[in-house]
Amino acid sequence: MPEAKLLENLKYLFNPRTVAVIGASDNPNKLGAHVMKSLTQGGFEGRILPVNPSAKTIMGIEAMGSVLDSSIPIDLAVVVVPAQFVPAVFEQCVSKNVRGIVLITAGFKEIDDPQGAKLQEKVRRLATKAAIPVIGPNTFGMINLNRNLNASFTPQFSLLQKGKLTLVSQSGGMSHLLAFMAMKQEVGFSKVVGLGNRLNVDFPDMVSYLMEDPDTEVIMLYLEGLDQPRRLLEAASRGRGKKPIIAYKTGRAESGDRASLSHTGSLAGNHDIYRGGFRQAGILCLDSSEALLDTARAMLMCPPPKGRKVAILSGQAGPAMAAGDFCEANGLEIAAFDSGTQKVINELLPPLALRTNPVDLGPAWYDARAIAGIVGAVMEDKNVDAILLLMMFASANRGAIASVSDLALRWKQQKPLITCLAAPQGIWEKQVKELEQSGALTNLPTPERAAQALVNLWEYRKIMEK
Amino acid sequence: MPEAKLLENLKYLFNPRTVAVIGASDNPNKLGAHVMKSLTQGGFEGRILPVNPSAKTIMGIEAMGSVLDSSIPIDLAVVVVPAQFVPAVFEQCVSKNVRGIVLITAGFKEIDDPQGAKLQEKVRRLATKAAIPVIGPNTFGMINLNRNLNASFTPQFSLLQKGKLTLVSQSGGMSHLLAFMAMKQEVGFSKVVGLGNRLNVDFPDMVSYLMEDPDTEVIMLYLEGLDQPRRLLEAASRGRGKKPIIAYKTGRAESGDRASLSHTGSLAGNHDIYRGGFRQAGILCLDSSEALLDTARAMLMCPPPKGRKVAILSGQAGPAMAAGDFCEANGLEIAAFDSGTQKVINELLPPLALRTNPVDLGPAWYDARAIAGIVGAVMEDKNVDAILLLMMFASANRGAIASVSDLALRWKQQKPLITCLAAPQGIWEKQVKELEQSGALTNLPTPERAAQALVNLWEYRKIMEK
Repeated sequence: MPEAKLLENLKYLFNPRTVAVIGASDNPNKLGAHVMKSLTQGGFEGRILPVNPSAKTIMGIEAMGSVLDSSIPIDLAVVVVPAQFVPAVFEQCVSKNVRGIVLITAGFKEIDDPQGAKLQEKVRRLATKAAIPVIGPNTFGMINLNRNLNASFTPQFSLLQKGKLTLVSQSGGMSHLLAFMAMKQEVGFSKVVGLGNRLNVDFPDMVSYLMEDPDTEVIMLYLEGLDQPRRLLEAASRGRGKKPIIAYKTGRAESGDRASLSHTGSLAGNHDIYRGGFRQAGILCLDSSEALLDTARAMLMCPPPKGRKVAILSGQAGPAMAAGDFCEANGLEIAAFDSGTQKVINELLPPLALRTNPVDLGPAWYDARAIAGIVGAVMEDKNVDAILLLMMFASANRGAIASVSDLALRWKQQKPLITCLAAPQGIWEKQVKELEQSGALTNLPTPERAAQALVNLWEYRKIMEK
Repeated sequence: MPEAKLLENLKYLFNPRTVAVIGASDNPNKLGAHVMKSLTQGGFEGRILPVNPSAKTIMGIEAMGSVLDSSIPIDLAVVVVPAQFVPAVFEQCVSKNVRGIVLITAGFKEIDDPQGAKLQEKVRRLATKAAIPVIGPNTFGMINLNRNLNASFTPQFSLLQKGKLTLVSQSGGMSHLLAFMAMKQEVGFSKVVGLGNRLNVDFPDMVSYLMEDPDTEVIMLYLEGLDQPRRLLEAASRGRGKKPIIAYKTGRAESGDRASLSHTGSLAGNHDIYRGGFRQAGILCLDSSEALLDTARAMLMCPPPKGRKVAILSGQAGPAMAAGDFCEANGLEIAAFDSGTQKVINELLPPLALRTNPVDLGPAWYDARAIAGIVGAVMEDKNVDAILLLMMFASANRGAIASVSDLALRWKQQKPLITCLAAPQGIWEKQVKELEQSGALTNLPTPERAAQALVNLWEYRKIMEK
């Protein structure tokens, strides 16, 4: 399929005016019912056309026997009929000039029976000849929060907030997990795309598309195996520096390789070779679902650090030590403050505190002026490339967040500012969320995870410098 | 101080009938007010005696000029007066036969001025001669949830649920952080103890005490430096096998060593030497606050695995691959099922699923009988030492948790069962919490963290075998 036509049609696929659900159902034991719920309850503002030859209406909407019965053009067809009916459905979609397809149905290349691969090749030819991009088969679907479009079998994806992160994933399970994590952290997504068996839309196509997508600022990939690693590296290289791409790849272990083969029909391959190639193409590799989301959040908010020198400002010494250990073990340096900064700190903190970096703000809990003075001086310090600000709530430091907030808002991430402001439920939450939403900081749940995110920003910066 | 007398008096310190707050205050800018709030709002059922020579009442309770004015015996004195008044206060406590002291006041060994160390030595002699155990100085205090005793300057510690984990920490910040994490995860604690400068109660004393404490089942340590490493190793060795001890030690990095010296007046020392010594003494070392709490939870619920062979049962392939990668990279093996088990799985799953280990339960989402059959067969498989059960909610698998629940409840951790059952807020939460509270499983937020906890159970088992 010509690349240009694919990208063009992907725009319709992700931003459809009309969505047909082929295999729509009212029966809650069928995926077609879940898909209908996702679309109707997700707030999609375009037309929804249920297709089911044996029903008059589905969820109160008039049903059609086939897409050919539609009097209006169809931008997106979500297909949930059993595998053997898919070729006929695709032929109808081609006749109707459907622009894109989400093929949820399983039973293709991923099954033991070679008939599955044959069937996949058959429908691939149909779609590709007609330049119809297909997400799937064997996928939960995809979600475009910015269009309130939930074209998946899980209505709860619509609970996600709108945002600028897009996840492209080879695993439905990982997509659900990362979405639930994002919901808990109130992190917004632009799109979540389950590639499944990748009929004719693969990681490189999605990377090319997302590089031009105004709703996406950070591209997150979850991969198991790759059929065309070179194409992905080329697509990433073309977009190099435009938007960060971060990837979490599993299937390192032997069992994973086996699993990937059975699961999506592609070998996982040698992990280290991937990692090296990814780095060269400007893709940062991460090692867990948690690191993937934390790092995406930090990349969305923070500029890349200009160097490796970090300042650690902490309301308590212990968390500072934990963060400092992590930074130093992973390639960052604890900055030596400029003498002017040090003078300010020495004036504002009593001699009983840790006054060199890391700085223990403990004695300044009650002293908004001291906290503001120290954080401000460190922000301006030319020896400091990034700041970790850690503060564990205690009844006596409840007010300390106010002086931090003002500074962070004014500072607006001139250097990366990652925080761990931790408190019991209901305390500080609103302030921290507002600071995050205004782009002033990224708040992570532990000092180590805050440090990890900063390490990853620095790693990405190093990749970009090459 | 004779060990026996110390342990005896620590019992009173943690289980007092009467608590005096020396330096109690109504002024919210003084720690004495926060301590009074903690005690009065925390539900403590014994007597609270505020001590303040210049107030008639504090928070509505009649105040005394000194502990000597009390007509009843005092088991615990919480001291928050400025450092220079502490020797006089201690003398009064000795006269009054106070059984234990929590010394919150800072300004001792941790300050730059050598007067601090001198003052600490002075009060140490006073307390130790009278066999009074002292938690602190330079601490937030301590909490014994089982007595509703919040002897700290943070009333919010009382939001913690009662449980069987005890944290002994050198850092107030880390204690607050871990407590907030536990609150969010609804994990219960027995005690949280901030050792501060360790006047005469140090890690080894706490380990000896907690080994005999019926309310504590898992001992969690957060350390920076140790003054008497050998004493800790001896105390741990004496309790070896009785209760798990897990430790998170920071201060690895150079800056950390500096920080520890300034912070609590002791050198952090060589990390690897500690790690080796800890292992020999039966203490498992962990590398983050998250791992410390996750592992403590798993240790509380799960028996140690008899071997390294893990079964991964997953509602989706991706999370299984992530967990499998983590297990294999960290010393666990993916079990090869017994032929009987494999036969059951092959009968219950269609050929399109991953039917060897890891098992993809995806096609059985709607089939409670199949899920129960597979999980049951794997639990009984003699080739399996531990089980990771992963299931990401999807609208279509909402009911799958029921069959898992029944089995887990009946199985009751005959082998370790760690899960990642993830869902949007309000879904599955109640069931998962009930399963945890009944001891049937430990549920962690990501597949990698579930795998990490299992790896740590196995590491602990290996330590115990030596």
